[in-house]
Amino acid sequence: MTGERIHLYDTTLRDGAQTQDVDFSVADKIAIARDLDRLGIDYVEGGWPGANPTDDQFFAEAPDLARSTFTAFGMTRRPGRSTANDPQLAALIQSKARAVCIVGKTWDFHVDVALAIPREENIELIADSIAALKAAKGEALFDAEHFFDGYKRNPAYTASCIKAAYEAGARWVVLCDTNGGTLPHEIDAIVRQVIDEHGIPGDRLGIHCHNDTENAVANSLAAVRAGVRMVQGTINGLGERCGNANLVSLIPSLMLKMGYDVGIKPADLPLLTEISRKFDERLNRAPNRHAPYVGASAFAHKGGLHVSAVEKDPSSYEHVEPEAVGNRRQIVMSDQAGRANVIARLREMGMAVDPKDERLNRLLDVVKQRDTEGYAYDTAEASFELLVRRELGEVPDYFTLKRFHVTDERRYNAKGELVVESEAVVRVKIGGKEYHEVASGNGPVNALDTAMRKALEPLYPLLDGVKLSDYRVRILAAKDGTGAMPRVLIRSRNGDGQEWSTLGVSTNIIEASMEALVDSYTFKLFKGGATPRS
Amino acid sequence: MTGERIHLYDTTLRDGAQTQDVDFSVADKIAIARDLDRLGIDYVEGGWPGANPTDDQFFAEAPDLARSTFTAFGMTRRPGRSTANDPQLAALIQSKARAVCIVGKTWDFHVDVALAIPREENIELIADSIAALKAAKGEALFDAEHFFDGYKRNPAYTASCIKAAYEAGARWVVLCDTNGGTLPHEIDAIVRQVIDEHGIPGDRLGIHCHNDTENAVANSLAAVRAGVRMVQGTINGLGERCGNANLVSLIPSLMLKMGYDVGIKPADLPLLTEISRKFDERLNRAPNRHAPYVGASAFAHKGGLHVSAVEKDPSSYEHVEPEAVGNRRQIVMSDQAGRANVIARLREMGMAVDPKDERLNRLLDVVKQRDTEGYAYDTAEASFELLVRRELGEVPDYFTLKRFHVTDERRYNAKGELVVESEAVVRVKIGGKEYHEVASGNGPVNALDTAMRKALEPLYPLLDGVKLSDYRVRILAAKDGTGAMPRVLIRSRNGDGQEWSTLGVSTNIIEASMEALVDSYTFKLFKGGATPRS
Repeated sequence: MTGERIHLYDTTLRDGAQTQDVDFSVADKIAIARDLDRLGIDYVEGGWPGANPTDDQFFAEAPDLARSTFTAFGMTRRPGRSTANDPQLAALIQSKARAVCIVGKTWDFHVDVALAIPREENIELIADSIAALKAAKGEALFDAEHFFDGYKRNPAYTASCIKAAYEAGARWVVLCDTNGGTLPHEIDAIVRQVIDEHGIPGDRLGIHCHNDTENAVANSLAAVRAGVRMVQGTINGLGERCGNANLVSLIPSLMLKMGYDVGIKPADLPLLTEISRKFDERLNRAPNRHAPYVGASAFAHKGGLHVSAVEKDPSSYEHVEPEAVGNRRQIVMSDQAGRANVIARLREMGMAVDPKDERLNRLLDVVKQRDTEGYAYDTAEASFELLVRRELGEVPDYFTLKRFHVTDERRYNAKGELVVESEAVVRVKIGGKEYHEVASGNGPVNALDTAMRKALEPLYPLLDGVKLSDYRVRILAAKDGTGAMPRVLIRSRNGDGQEWSTLGVSTNIIEASMEALVDSYTFKLFKGGATPRS
Repeated sequence: MTGERIHLYDTTLRDGAQTQDVDFSVADKIAIARDLDRLGIDYVEGGWPGANPTDDQFFAEAPDLARSTFTAFGMTRRPGRSTANDPQLAALIQSKARAVCIVGKTWDFHVDVALAIPREENIELIADSIAALKAAKGEALFDAEHFFDGYKRNPAYTASCIKAAYEAGARWVVLCDTNGGTLPHEIDAIVRQVIDEHGIPGDRLGIHCHNDTENAVANSLAAVRAGVRMVQGTINGLGERCGNANLVSLIPSLMLKMGYDVGIKPADLPLLTEISRKFDERLNRAPNRHAPYVGASAFAHKGGLHVSAVEKDPSSYEHVEPEAVGNRRQIVMSDQAGRANVIARLREMGMAVDPKDERLNRLLDVVKQRDTEGYAYDTAEASFELLVRRELGEVPDYFTLKRFHVTDERRYNAKGELVVESEAVVRVKIGGKEYHEVASGNGPVNALDTAMRKALEPLYPLLDGVKLSDYRVRILAAKDGTGAMPRVLIRSRNGDGQEWSTLGVSTNIIEASMEALVDSYTFKLFKGGATPRS
């Protein structure tokens, strides 16, 4: 238990964004950066200003981070240009980032083949670029691309590249296992040589690993034990090919098992499970239930003798306390886990609950039933709150949807153009009266939303300015062969930026969407203290 | 490169079967055991005879394995019984297994609390049981439960437990990290102590790791480097909580990178990808595309400049040859799509292209244009191929969708129940004739799919048996304030397990879904060599 400081550097928004099928919007990037900041990650790498419109816009808006250093990524200057005349470096300097990390080549083969310049010149590119960025921004970092592959073949040349960055003032020289093929014992030996033989101190060295041999986490830990003091990785190990080193697995091992100070307060460590799962939802994929530390099954115990032993002394069957990382023990077929969870969630909603309150049992039954039906309330806090408050009889009857009817039609219009139109008709009862409205829209959900608002807004002006900010569909695996179940997650946003999520599950996607819409309106009305019309 | 022999022990059918929601049938077990035998795994642990009917039947039928030693699992004799009078040991002896592995307690705490017998007596259980099994079966193995947790707290006692097994003649004493919390450097130090201080030679030691810190593979490798000569694990890391050590990742690292002889012929190593993917199919889950060595993305390359370098010399961007493990290189389309990407993808599709072909420029423009419209071809290889082949005029006119009309209605049925129904009407031109069909379904997409098939299948029986296996929707951020764009990704599956992905983008989700459906049918017809009807 050393207490020594290890710095964490998140590259989810840059290297993680290289992953197939991952396409972050600016809004995604802002939300993820805020989560990393909330957790207390030292560096948040936002992307590559100048490389694409999303990153340009993100760096122009530059999220206001309290604890994390917002960092831009780029590369060494182009051969044949001075640093002052390199537009790419200029974009980095002009960005709102507080630090800049640039990648440069350190494997002679890539200098010869990809850059096709003399090897000496590559060293100049590195030194010049780091010096210029340090002078302009105060903090420059160097990602040594293909460091381990290069070092294995030509240690002298590769070492001279990273020494150039170090001597030019790079805050961190990051040793990258770009192709991901290096094994832990090799990482250990090479890092020790860098420190002992090439004279770069560990508190100026970082590590960047990929998971191509399933050793990205172990390689990062091996580098730390060999002396590096900065670790790069991504949330949930996102990254191209087999992914980057998984910060979500690394952080608890570094803090709880190795006793390092990674800049995260122990009281904030429980955010890890929430941040990990929210991230997968944002990517519209199911969280991995077998994920170390944060997976739903990470602390699962099967029934029988084992469970009674676990209850006697959990530490004899669990390597860390699940609560330390925000996870929880899962005892299959045990009411206890569910009950504690529901009580905890109610407390989170600001409801004081007596654990002996008998209504709690009924509520627990309802939640369990919903869970088997496919309602995953983890990410739909508004629908969960409504479920609870409806069970407790607290939610007034603002309106009742009696019927709806939607038509989507592809046809030729009067000008002979092929058009697709959706039209929705709704019948809503508000107070004693029925309202019958029709609207068209970009697709059936938009048409339904518009028709519902036509009925609701005149009576409930609170709903003015509420917008759908996200809509996601995932098909739940069919449990009994009767057909797949769409689960719809809708995120709504207020004029003032407040957001909430609701969900719907049904065999019919339109019905599931409508359920999520109805919850969205109801939640807004309930939280806004609307008076039901009579 | 040592050439030394490391023995592999697969416990997929026993410890892997502990995983939540995994339930192997006897037929599954037989098929999996045959695959492991075909690959050349030394030991195949089949389960626990006497513990449940499936395992009883499996051991009664005992698959005929050519290379693997079929092994039964059990536990030390009960306290207070002789080995001759223990029905559980009797079942092991009577089974058709050629070797038997038994688990025993080695952590003093568990002896005190779970067994509740004197610690000396536990040592006797171990020694007696191993001796009896060795005498009866010729080969006995010992799994030292909670070995590392026990050793950290009471090394003398834990060591005396494993020495008892060793001295009683256990072929392998397997050091188990049962709770999965031990880190690689601890494994290394403790294994070295077992060999150096407690005198058990490495060629009588095995390792059994769990993935609770994402280090199961690294822990296994650390133990091998410290001297153990047998490794236990499972296919794809199956196992309770976070899984067991993943043999699929371990095997190529041991063979290709560390130079060990693991009993698998290099010519058989390419079976690995097939066996890994078939295994997931058997579990009815999508193979992990990011899996080390065998995942579909494990050798994926993204980005223009990078791809041209890969084509020059793949070894500079790939840590092993994909073909060595039965995998293949994949060139990914993306917004960074350069000319080299497109050429590489065309080659993958089996199209020889002259890089100077002027049609290539037009194609590149089309791909870029589609990309800005929101078409992400990364994961929709079938839509990409159709895009290309349509541009080149290669795709026949199988059918034309003229119009469609979908209705979703929530209403009260004749019994007074609230029901939601979707109904689709399509007008499709096939050859010179128009077909007008109607169908209902679970939601609008299902209804459209069913109606389309009513029109298409009679003329194109190739489409029989094609199923939608996944449907995902993501809303693309509005680029110009005109409204959000749904992007629909559909995965289709053939009767023979072949899968392909198609996509659609439109302001209207139904139109986007229809586009993805039309691509799915067309791709199947095109690849199946269907003759267009006239």
